[in-house]
Amino acid sequence: MTHDTIVALATAQGISAIAVIRLSGDTSIEMVQQVFQGKDLTKQASHTIHFGTIRDEEHIIDEVLVSVFKDESSFTRENSVEISCHGSPYIVKEIIKALLKRGARLAQPGEFTKRAFLNGRFDLAQAEAVADLINAETENAKQVALNQMRGGFSKEINHLREELIHFASLIELELDFGEEDVEFAKRDDLKKLILKIQSYLKALIQSFDQGNVIKNGVPTVIAGKPNAGKSTLLNVLLNEEKAIVSEIAGTTRDVIEDEIVLGGINFRFIDTAGLRETQDVIEALGVERTRDRMKKASLIIYLFDLANATFEEIRAEIQGLEALGIPYVKVGNKVDRADTGLLKKLGREGFIFISAAQHTNIDQLKEKLLAFFHVNTVKTGDVVVTNLRHYQNLVQTNESLDLVLKGMRDGITGDFMAMDIRQSLHYLGEITGQITTDDLLENIFSKFCIGK
Amino acid sequence: MTHDTIVALATAQGISAIAVIRLSGDTSIEMVQQVFQGKDLTKQASHTIHFGTIRDEEHIIDEVLVSVFKDESSFTRENSVEISCHGSPYIVKEIIKALLKRGARLAQPGEFTKRAFLNGRFDLAQAEAVADLINAETENAKQVALNQMRGGFSKEINHLREELIHFASLIELELDFGEEDVEFAKRDDLKKLILKIQSYLKALIQSFDQGNVIKNGVPTVIAGKPNAGKSTLLNVLLNEEKAIVSEIAGTTRDVIEDEIVLGGINFRFIDTAGLRETQDVIEALGVERTRDRMKKASLIIYLFDLANATFEEIRAEIQGLEALGIPYVKVGNKVDRADTGLLKKLGREGFIFISAAQHTNIDQLKEKLLAFFHVNTVKTGDVVVTNLRHYQNLVQTNESLDLVLKGMRDGITGDFMAMDIRQSLHYLGEITGQITTDDLLENIFSKFCIGK
Repeated sequence: MTHDTIVALATAQGISAIAVIRLSGDTSIEMVQQVFQGKDLTKQASHTIHFGTIRDEEHIIDEVLVSVFKDESSFTRENSVEISCHGSPYIVKEIIKALLKRGARLAQPGEFTKRAFLNGRFDLAQAEAVADLINAETENAKQVALNQMRGGFSKEINHLREELIHFASLIELELDFGEEDVEFAKRDDLKKLILKIQSYLKALIQSFDQGNVIKNGVPTVIAGKPNAGKSTLLNVLLNEEKAIVSEIAGTTRDVIEDEIVLGGINFRFIDTAGLRETQDVIEALGVERTRDRMKKASLIIYLFDLANATFEEIRAEIQGLEALGIPYVKVGNKVDRADTGLLKKLGREGFIFISAAQHTNIDQLKEKLLAFFHVNTVKTGDVVVTNLRHYQNLVQTNESLDLVLKGMRDGITGDFMAMDIRQSLHYLGEITGQITTDDLLENIFSKFCIGK
Repeated sequence: MTHDTIVALATAQGISAIAVIRLSGDTSIEMVQQVFQGKDLTKQASHTIHFGTIRDEEHIIDEVLVSVFKDESSFTRENSVEISCHGSPYIVKEIIKALLKRGARLAQPGEFTKRAFLNGRFDLAQAEAVADLINAETENAKQVALNQMRGGFSKEINHLREELIHFASLIELELDFGEEDVEFAKRDDLKKLILKIQSYLKALIQSFDQGNVIKNGVPTVIAGKPNAGKSTLLNVLLNEEKAIVSEIAGTTRDVIEDEIVLGGINFRFIDTAGLRETQDVIEALGVERTRDRMKKASLIIYLFDLANATFEEIRAEIQGLEALGIPYVKVGNKVDRADTGLLKKLGREGFIFISAAQHTNIDQLKEKLLAFFHVNTVKTGDVVVTNLRHYQNLVQTNESLDLVLKGMRDGITGDFMAMDIRQSLHYLGEITGQITTDDLLENIFSKFCIGK
């Protein structure tokens, strides 16, 4: 396929030692040659680096190193060039301007990766993993993306797909024989295969919950009555003085949040205004926001004030919490000032007792939080689904296969069965991109950064 | 010279398509080989690029491209490696951590350029130009830095220095002959040479004013009475709605500023609170700041309200302005609503008449601003001094040469004359780094960014 030449800054914006401008397209090497003074780039081997100056007419823009990549061996599988210039936003702008003058076009977001996909360097799931890899903030998230980019996930999907295609062809062959009532595809074998595929699909589908936690982290709201010690706990969990803490109930009005990685999971802790009826307008707005954030949380750390609340009050609070239907951890704070009778009663209810101010039992709380998410360390090669699009396609594949099984039980004809199998093949094919539409590609690559 | 291996991120921080990690040091290639899986990097030619994975023990960190540079041909003139990885801050951190484990050390700011200097790739003035190049925000600033980096400035300085060294040696030779009263260095020739050198030094010294404007831009305060139209003018000059404009005198309280490039010069326009006695505490603070900024400005655009002020009031304002001793432009605003008698009187006083609201005569004002700074477009090869350190050394060289001339007039002995010449050679030598101290180098390179 012939492509025009695209250009973009590939490194982050800003003043730095160096910046890299990337070009891809059949004429990219010739195009850079037009603004380059040094060796003849068109005569250089792939994967070599050449010193020279970039010029616009007679005027020198910068001294640069130019890397040449040829055809199949480049990332995009097209002729490509990387210009490593001084890391000045002004110089970057001038070099790109000079290249645009020579006929290059500014790349769209993800267009380099899209070309790599269209030119067969990797499939769609692998291309999507490139973006996940760049955005990964934890070791687990990075490892899942890297495994997917290196094709572990695609290999499994393609293997299932090939086995299904084999059966679909046999069934379609039967149709060619029309009335003869032959059976090339043994129904028992097909059923076995489908069940095998479904068991694998289900494992992948189940991995999505974990994958989602790995990729996106866990929004965790810290809630409770005013002065229960929520801001103190936030600061202890983050290990910094993020929220303003005072003895005055109602100190926190805004929602304060920050992320921290615990056991490979990115927890986003959200400190909130204490829950109470209040005459203070700003505080009331804060309380409203707290309720809002609680409803959207993946997990609530609910803090009870052991030094001031009675067993009955705590009981009432738990009922309100229960009604929300969000997973929560019951944490009794100020354990050092609590009545022992109260502690005994609450001990039977699965409470964790801490003192945020004195850092008591904080590790125990962290362990409890992690226990909600059975995330083990992801190893090289592990396949975990993190992408919502893949998840939906896996679910749809599974449902189509249910239809095939149902059809078999109901004794439907081969042509209907073939249609259901084709449908599941379609969903599987969309994951790795054997089946794509322009809209789908547009949608996927527009989320990439420019220069990738 | 043997150096340990240093490592740093060379591209800007942030999520991006790619990031480049740079290493330099005799063992840098072997060190990267320890974490690299792919070809044997130690056996590859200089200026070649190799695909592979970076690993920490058995665990894959990322797929990367590694560029190898050997010895003399690298930027630092040491073995060097650039690792081009996915532009994820997490991955960058992990790769650098893995290299630190293998014995690399985090580079200090400017340490790569410092090594290039210490290994003789370029002299000190050229090394300093690297930082100026990266920070350049206009074509002129970039061109001056590029010319300096490419050695134009150094060549001139070294040429002067060699001629002086020649004379100094002759005079010192005379001293060896002691009482014999020979004169190897003809005093007339020496005088001619010194005058020639001084005339060139003066040209360089004079270029500093221009160079300073090119490099650092011109802080230009827009001042005047309340409601003279200062914020309107700022918006017109910047071509955007930067400052809030209203009919109410005293609208602007904070100092508002922004930069724009006019004719290759970076003007930083500073809009200020109108000058008046006020009871409003916040406005009063603003007025105080205005006076402060006016004193520090390189240029003041003083706006007179032609629609409301009398000739006498304007006269009084000019007197106050004159007393500051800062260059200023007298601008009459609201020309469309001015009394023709007033315009006639002011016309003789070198006023520019504009209407900021109606964009009248704005180009004329811009030309007037530029006329203050006789900056022509800098061309490839032009030598302009922009560095304060160079400027000071040039001035000191010139003063030492004055002493030599004075000594000749006073008939001092050759040994004293030799000392004065040596002193001027010292100052010249510090510019290009033939003469350096650790403190000087430390001071220069600590202003660089890390990775350069």
